[in-house]
Order: sequence, then C-alpha cells, then structure tokens
Amino acid sequence: MKQIVILGSTGSIGTSTLDIIAKFPDKFRAVGLTAGTNVEKLEEQIRTFSPAAVAMADDAAAERLRARCKGLKTTILSGTDGLRQVATAPDADLVISAIVGGAGLVPTLAAITAGKFIALANKEPMVMAGRLMQDEARKHGVRIFPVDSEHSALFQSMEGHRVEDILRLILTASGGPLWNLTKEELRRVTVEQALKHPNWKMGDKITIDSATLMNKGLEVVEAHWLFDIPASKIEVVVHRESIIHSLVEYQDRSVIAQLGLPDMRTPIAYAMNYPARVPLDLPSLNLAQIGTLTFFNPDHDRFPCLGFGYEALQVGGTMPAVLNAANEVAVQAFLDRRIGFLGIAETIRRTMDAHKPVEVSALEDALGADAWARAKAGEIVESLAAAAVR
Amino acid sequence: MKQIVILGSTGSIGTSTLDIIAKFPDKFRAVGLTAGTNVEKLEEQIRTFSPAAVAMADDAAAERLRARCKGLKTTILSGTDGLRQVATAPDADLVISAIVGGAGLVPTLAAITAGKFIALANKEPMVMAGRLMQDEARKHGVRIFPVDSEHSALFQSMEGHRVEDILRLILTASGGPLWNLTKEELRRVTVEQALKHPNWKMGDKITIDSATLMNKGLEVVEAHWLFDIPASKIEVVVHRESIIHSLVEYQDRSVIAQLGLPDMRTPIAYAMNYPARVPLDLPSLNLAQIGTLTFFNPDHDRFPCLGFGYEALQVGGTMPAVLNAANEVAVQAFLDRRIGFLGIAETIRRTMDAHKPVEVSALEDALGADAWARAKAGEIVESLAAAAVR
Repeated sequence: MKQIVILGSTGSIGTSTLDIIAKFPDKFRAVGLTAGTNVEKLEEQIRTFSPAAVAMADDAAAERLRARCKGLKTTILSGTDGLRQVATAPDADLVISAIVGGAGLVPTLAAITAGKFIALANKEPMVMAGRLMQDEARKHGVRIFPVDSEHSALFQSMEGHRVEDILRLILTASGGPLWNLTKEELRRVTVEQALKHPNWKMGDKITIDSATLMNKGLEVVEAHWLFDIPASKIEVVVHRESIIHSLVEYQDRSVIAQLGLPDMRTPIAYAMNYPARVPLDLPSLNLAQIGTLTFFNPDHDRFPCLGFGYEALQVGGTMPAVLNAANEVAVQAFLDRRIGFLGIAETIRRTMDAHKPVEVSALEDALGADAWARAKAGEIVESLAAAAVR
Repeated sequence: MKQIVILGSTGSIGTSTLDIIAKFPDKFRAVGLTAGTNVEKLEEQIRTFSPAAVAMADDAAAERLRARCKGLKTTILSGTDGLRQVATAPDADLVISAIVGGAGLVPTLAAITAGKFIALANKEPMVMAGRLMQDEARKHGVRIFPVDSEHSALFQSMEGHRVEDILRLILTASGGPLWNLTKEELRRVTVEQALKHPNWKMGDKITIDSATLMNKGLEVVEAHWLFDIPASKIEVVVHRESIIHSLVEYQDRSVIAQLGLPDMRTPIAYAMNYPARVPLDLPSLNLAQIGTLTFFNPDHDRFPCLGFGYEALQVGGTMPAVLNAANEVAVQAFLDRRIGFLGIAETIRRTMDAHKPVEVSALEDALGADAWARAKAGEIVESLAAAAVR
C-alpha cells in the first residue's frame, strides 16, 4: 500500500490522480491533499478519501473548509506552513506535485528534503530551481518521476536503455490552438480562442502556455534538469495529433518513443506505480483509425516563447526563474484581458532583458528572482495595458 | 572482443554485419563465415577478415573456393556438416543467423545446442520449429536476439518494461510494392514489379514475401515464439513509410515504439552489442522532414498470406513449417516465372489444406514436414504452370 500526498488535489492532475487511487484501493491511499482556494471540491475529496490531513494555501478558504468539515477526522491546515506540513507527512511515500506554477516550489522542495519520492506534474519548480531540486534529491536519495506527458514519454523511452547512448531528446508539441494563425491574427486572438486546446483538456494556465509554445520552452528546461541532458541535445517537433508523446534518439540512430491517446492517467499511474503498470480502462491506440501522424518544425518567429526557454537555460542561474515568473504574470494578465496574446511574449522578453542573473545557490535566490520578475513583469503589463487603452 | 560467426555472410544481412565488424575492430572479430554458392564474395570476405574457418553449403562451390584461396590460413569446409562445424566453433560467442529460408534451421539449431548466443535474422527456423528452438535455447542458457527490424523494434520496446504488463504487439508492414493494386492487377504482376520494394533493399526472397505480405505472416509466427505472446495479442498495421518499426502496448495503454530510417545496421548492431549501442554513422530520423506517417489495416482479401501465418500458428505443430516450405517453393516458382503472383498464395493454401499436422517434438518432425510440403507444393506449382501454358 503506497501512501500518497497530492499537492494540488483539486486541479486536473490532482483529480485524475484521485481517480486512480479510487480505482486501486489496495495499492494506494490518499493520506494528504492540498488545494489553493477550491473549498467545495476539497470538501468532497475529504469526504470520499478521508485523508489524515489537508492544507489550503489560502487561510480564509481553510477557515470556510473547517466550518464545513466539522466532525470529520481530517486535520485542516493552511498557508505555506500547512502545505509544507502535508507535503512532508511522516507516513507519505510519494508526493504528487501538481500545483500550478511557481507556488509549487516550496512544498515540493520540502517534500524532497523530507526524503519523499516525487511524481512531478508541476514543471515550474524544476524550471525555477532545477539544480537545487536535483541536488536535494540526490542528497536525500529521492527519485523524481516525471508526470508531464512528454517527460513521462522520455522517461519511458529511456527505461532499459543506457543514458550514455543518448544522442537527442525530441519533445513533441501539439502546436496549440493557434498554430496556423498569422502574426497579425495572433495579435487579435481572444482568450476563448487561446483556451481551445485541440487534444488535451487542461487548466487555463497550461493551455495558454500551450498556445504560446511557452509550455514547450518550459519543458525544454524541465527535460534538461530531469535527465541531465544539455539543451543542444533537446529538440522540439510540432506533432498536431499528440499521439507520439516524445522520442529519444540513441547513438546507433535507433529512436524509442512513447505513444498513446492523450490521457494524463497513463503517465500519472506510471509515476505512481513504477516500474509496474496498472491496468487502465482507457481506449487502445488504433493507428489505422487515426490514419495520419504529421510533423513540422516550430515557427520561432510567430512563437518566440519556445526560444526563450532555450535562451534562459543557456544564460542559466536565475534566468529560468525569471522567465517563469514573467510568463505567469503575463498569462494571468492575458486571461484577465488586460494585454493581448502577443503581449505575453513581449512581457517575458522585456523582463528577461531587464534581468541581471545570479547563481541559484539556495532557495532564496530562486524566490528572490521570482519576486523581482513578478514585480518587473507587472510594470510591463501595466504599460502595455495603458498603451492599449490609449 | 566478441567472436562472431555469420551464417549467410554473402547476403544482405551478412555483408551489413561485416560492415559493422570492420567499423569496430576492437569490439568484434569474424571467426567464421558461411555462404551458399557465392564463391567470389566469400573469397573477398576471407581476404578481408581472415576468419579461422568458412563453409559453403555447396560442395562444388567449396572446391572452387579452395582453389582460389590456396596459401590462406582459413579452413574451408562444405555441406551441412561444414556449416554445422562453423556454427559451433568453440571460440564463437555470437552466431548471426542470416541464411535465407529453412536452410538455416539445422546450423542455427546446432549453434543453440552448442550454447552460442544467436542474433536471428533468419526468421524461417523460428517459423518451422519455434518451440524446439526456444526449448533448446532455455536448456543451454542461450539468448536469441532478434535482428529482423520489426522484432528488434519489439525487443527494444520491451527492454526496461515488464512482460506481464504487455497487452499487444503491433507489427508494422510496409505493404510492399503492390499494396494499391486490384486483385486483377495482382494477377498480372511481373517479377520486376514485385521486386521493387519501396523502403528496404533486401534479397529477392524476402522482397517477394514483402509483396505478398507472407513476410508479415511469418513475422507473426516469429514474434509468437520469440516473445511467448499468443497470436491473439499480435496485430499488424500497414505503415507505408517504414519509420515506426513496431510497437508494444501495455496494460496502462502506454505504447512504446522503436523508430528509425530503414537501415538494417541498427538492429544488427544492437543484437551484436546488446545492451550497449555502438555509434553508427547513419542519418538521423528527421520527422519534420518526413512530414507524414500513415497507417491502415491490411487487406486480407487481396493479401491472404498474412492470414495464413495466423492460421498456421493456431493449428500449430508442423503447420507453420509447411506454410514456410510451400511459400519458399512458390516464391522460387514465381521468381522463375513459372507461376503468377496470385499463384504463390494459391500454392500455399492448397499445400496447407493437404497437410495433416503432427507435433514437432524433434528436429526430424520439422524437417519431415518441410520435405513433404516442398514436394506437395512442387506438384501444385507444376499443375499451375501447366494450366497457365494451356
């Protein structure tokens, strides 16, 4: 019986994880859950799974939850300390890191430092402080299993093969909903258009990241830290159908790939049960029915955010944390209809240009850069929003 | 230093194997070679690689070779005994089984019984006597590494994953050069048309097998015996581009595949150097450049030979050996322009219908069925040829 903690249990990955736990009650038990502000859903999850403890990032939300869960045995905590406490619960074997954005860094790192194995769906901590995360993982004998479909694909395509034989990692990108628009059309894209992902049903933030290709830029950084492969050996190819989730090329030119219909339950379950697989009642891949798989190179001119990922990785230090923070601020401003779609890339570009990177030797360095970049990107968003009104 | 014997060194797989040996003289040494009748090529290989011993299946050819190789240190043997002697040479570590057709069975089985690891490119022995081959391999602690591109792909897609998690093997088929012809057009197909394989440059026999889809039928049988997976879990999908070489589906619906540009040196080198890979100077797979991969279901009406493979496996016993022998006779008759393209399937069908299968408990059972089927298929070919003349 594996004791599972889910950081971000009310999100898309969190609820899929709970689906799997519910399906295999003899294998997994949810002992800890955390959420940001979604009181109703967390209450429902408490009543279904009876975890020992939960935490809400928001204190007021935790208060409301306590009122609704009177008489239940679950301990309800709140704030950063509450999240950290759940993430490091003594009986937890595996922590599913599925908070959206940089907010996942502190509790995920706390879990690593407490020696918990990690199933990492939250790519931003690895982008912000990849070296630190991996150093801590090594120090505490922790394995970090990727949950992102692309990184799970890379991981599955490396199992049984030798790291020293790897020539290249090839990440596939769906290209998002806007791949065929001209730059002029991209300028006028609405939030609704950008949220229409062709293949994956995901949260808003990652769906916008998918539309800008920033998601792929962040994934390049994540792949670098997860697998210790230099950026020069990581490529991206657009694959509209999202059937081949990613590929690894070896020095004999053999390429191993992981494929499947887009469903996050497969990579989540693999990370939870590695190296065994559980039977999942999902439709089988039927290539003849799909008929055609297509591939083309990404267009860096229309989608500059992918290149920002490579650039941040090359600059190193705090630059990836700045990239990530600027992106989070810009995406939120776009979702709030304060800036246009192209304003996302512009905000990130200008924030990165203004940054003087330093090494990330401790968590504080990453958090400091994150705070600086959020403020800087906020200013840029203000000026873009003001210019748009004028 | 791995000591290599190549059974069938003058064929397509044999020469590719010698290419690899030449490229990695610190890793591999060719200690034994065998060929059928190609004296010139074997002489050249003797002069280049100085093997301790070679054998030619044909006694007269061996005589000619001896005359041309006077003064060289290589021992020249001949006939079945000669082949067996080279296949079981005491210093050999790995035997590359690359003879074309059922003729490979005796020397390959001899190598297994002598405890030699096998790199199996010659699928027919596994079709004729799969259970026997595997029983002997187990008894003598021998590993059989597949070299066929599809089976190497399956093997590579299983490495690092658990056999008990496998749901399905999916073999890809190029469909051969005739995939889009009507039945009426297939009736009039010439030898030249049938020999024009779209993706792979191979010997004549396997190229015709590819055109009839009999190659895929044989591969289904081979996959069954290599991986101990029932026929009901082995599927075939036509994939014109031959980029995905085959796939394995697991019970969590994750599919692992091996891809690459069609070049046999990759699977040969993997079998020779497993689990390590050697750097091969071949072009990288560029999916964006390829652009499109297509898939459709095979047409059992126009290409019945694929179904014969499943049927022979289901009937079991000597039936697969009969299928294989009838196919060899029919393909040769087609190459000799004695029967038409559709006559190949008809010869196999009628030979299988006439056969009363028995268990294969010993080599003699397989060889007996093989001899019976060759005679029977010969008769059928005669009657088809006579009917065509009339």
